[in-house]
Amino acid sequence: MQLTEEVIVDMLQKLGSHGEDPEGGITRFLYSEAWVQAQRFLKEEMEREGLTASFDEVGNLFGRLEGTKYPGETILSGSHVDTVRNAGHYDGQLGIITAFLAIKYLKANYGQPLRNLEMVSMAEEEGSRFPYAFWGSKNIVGTAKQEEVLGKLAFDDGIPFEEAMRKAGFEFRDESKGRRQDIKAFVEIHNEQGNVLEKEGKSVGVVHSIVGQRRFTVKLTGQANHAGTTPMELRKDAVFTASKIIADVLTEAKRIGDPLVCTFGKIEVTPNVVNVVPGNVLLTIDTRHTDKEALVSFTDYLEATMTRIAEEDGVEISIDMWMDEDPVPMDKEIVRVIEESCKEKGLNYKLMHSGAGHDSQVFAPFYPTAMLFVPSIDGISHNPKEYTEPKDLLEGAKALAAALYELAYKE
Amino acid sequence: MQLTEEVIVDMLQKLGSHGEDPEGGITRFLYSEAWVQAQRFLKEEMEREGLTASFDEVGNLFGRLEGTKYPGETILSGSHVDTVRNAGHYDGQLGIITAFLAIKYLKANYGQPLRNLEMVSMAEEEGSRFPYAFWGSKNIVGTAKQEEVLGKLAFDDGIPFEEAMRKAGFEFRDESKGRRQDIKAFVEIHNEQGNVLEKEGKSVGVVHSIVGQRRFTVKLTGQANHAGTTPMELRKDAVFTASKIIADVLTEAKRIGDPLVCTFGKIEVTPNVVNVVPGNVLLTIDTRHTDKEALVSFTDYLEATMTRIAEEDGVEISIDMWMDEDPVPMDKEIVRVIEESCKEKGLNYKLMHSGAGHDSQVFAPFYPTAMLFVPSIDGISHNPKEYTEPKDLLEGAKALAAALYELAYKE
Repeated sequence: MQLTEEVIVDMLQKLGSHGEDPEGGITRFLYSEAWVQAQRFLKEEMEREGLTASFDEVGNLFGRLEGTKYPGETILSGSHVDTVRNAGHYDGQLGIITAFLAIKYLKANYGQPLRNLEMVSMAEEEGSRFPYAFWGSKNIVGTAKQEEVLGKLAFDDGIPFEEAMRKAGFEFRDESKGRRQDIKAFVEIHNEQGNVLEKEGKSVGVVHSIVGQRRFTVKLTGQANHAGTTPMELRKDAVFTASKIIADVLTEAKRIGDPLVCTFGKIEVTPNVVNVVPGNVLLTIDTRHTDKEALVSFTDYLEATMTRIAEEDGVEISIDMWMDEDPVPMDKEIVRVIEESCKEKGLNYKLMHSGAGHDSQVFAPFYPTAMLFVPSIDGISHNPKEYTEPKDLLEGAKALAAALYELAYKE
Repeated sequence: MQLTEEVIVDMLQKLGSHGEDPEGGITRFLYSEAWVQAQRFLKEEMEREGLTASFDEVGNLFGRLEGTKYPGETILSGSHVDTVRNAGHYDGQLGIITAFLAIKYLKANYGQPLRNLEMVSMAEEEGSRFPYAFWGSKNIVGTAKQEEVLGKLAFDDGIPFEEAMRKAGFEFRDESKGRRQDIKAFVEIHNEQGNVLEKEGKSVGVVHSIVGQRRFTVKLTGQANHAGTTPMELRKDAVFTASKIIADVLTEAKRIGDPLVCTFGKIEVTPNVVNVVPGNVLLTIDTRHTDKEALVSFTDYLEATMTRIAEEDGVEISIDMWMDEDPVPMDKEIVRVIEESCKEKGLNYKLMHSGAGHDSQVFAPFYPTAMLFVPSIDGISHNPKEYTEPKDLLEGAKALAAALYELAYKE
């Protein structure tokens, strides 16, 4: 058995057939009928390849190739099986399929490993059906909290979390059990969801860190007035204040540059009509950096600048930071192993950071963890148009197989 | 009979009782049941005072005190009886009530005038029920077009214009009749709907001109991208471009200052979510000035600046100017007469422009026209909180009565 473009594309298509959305792409929410079908399909594929397939309590699906020498040590690879609404064929799926094919390839060419080699199709990462993300990986590392999901209603059909879970045949995990002790490494391959690899003409990204993020909601309160009869000098125009803030902050973010990013993604103006001076503006801010100090330094600048400009304009401001996630470095030793493998195989790779969150950030504090990226054309993701060229899928699969070989077959 | 605060407030209350909205204020749309009641109430009041009351074809209501010497010359005063949804007690109503009380006062104290003295309660000005404004005044000056309203559906209940009109007992006017030839002057009193008079501590505004307006819709098309994985350098962030445009243009508008105003009242961002670089922004612009050249010069600057900033950012821009109304000067001679009357009566007045459109701008091209303002507390209008202090209502009524006396009783 060899890794080929065809076999990868074919498996992505097969898994992607579970949850096809009449409005385009894949919609495969946690514990939905399509989700159950997808996990069942994967379990059958694992068993056909002679892997020991099993679900944990919450519905994470594992497929294990036993190790010959270190039965208490497991090298794990995989990603999440759930999707956003109208998703593409790569986000999540790719990490499961590639782990499966890499293990199949290693088994066919090198037989049993020294350590257990295990793939995982994780229950949930996206937070698309319930107001909770990383339900799969957090149950593996033992940080999932039943109390945080109990009674939470699905965005789509309003069914409570526990009811959806039980209907799919699963149950809460006993939180006192703690995390698995046998995992010695976790490696996840994912599409980049950005356009850095494409722009630089690289096939594979070796991720050295996942960015930290801070998110804010900012409310500006000026005064709504008649657009014709209120002289410029007497206005408290919240849109004017917001514009000065955004122009200043994004100019500064652009000056600082990579790996800092900052986005004012959402703007809501009240009353939002052509002939009224806008009295209220709500803004959201999403800012990320791989270095915690740099992230804090930028958000300090951000808060000071917003406050100063609002004060100058006589506009009230309230700033709410509702997300504060630290950057997560990947394991240096595994990154080194992956990079060496890429070099050895002559792969067209690049060391880079991840600007998005992934299951790997949940694993990293507990197990040596690393990630691989393949390019996303035009950076498009969470969209049926999500695409990675087959040649890059193959390079990614080769990189993952080489890394798993180093981790599971070598002393 | 004397003009007093009480008599004005009492009449405003009485007229305002027709169309009281359970959600606050007055809702009295064109040809609605409340509108019919209000016109019927006014007709009875006119007749009680010995005025000759009559409707024209479309429902404008006139109340005439015959002139003794010049039966072919009419001095007209009034405003519109329709309101926006949840209106206050002043916008429109005040101009009708004050004309009524001024004529009543003049009749009681000076008898019949030399010229006909006529009040008008106009059918419609706000454009709140159908997508057409100034239906009342445009029918008086002969510029209303049947074809522009025929088949148009009401925003509130979907009834076609002509059906609502006929249900209220009215009919289209024969357009070939042209405008009335007897009107020698039109004077309207209105609340300011701005806060210039209040800020300057004045009771009465003598309006010398009504601003011209230009309105635009601007579409910015950048590229939506993942907020975490798209480096600042690779973005086409339409919100960033919009912010630079708004900050630049409003800074310039503020520098130029009175009587220029400029408002970005509406902003719509797509996709408008926290973690996506915004690809599209729709903006509206409302800009006004009393001088046409200055208005054109500013909008030239506006268009050039928007185009330049969008080009610098690699963001596509489309600019649509969908309103272009010239400034309307009031009649110099009538303004002089009114100002003289204010001086003579010792009224606390100010010469000013109107930043909003009024029926007077429809009259001005055809008949010598002028306007008076009274203060709006906090500039609030189109709102149940709309308020003018009774002492200022009285000053305004005195100014109107003095002006009508000069125009109708003097040679």
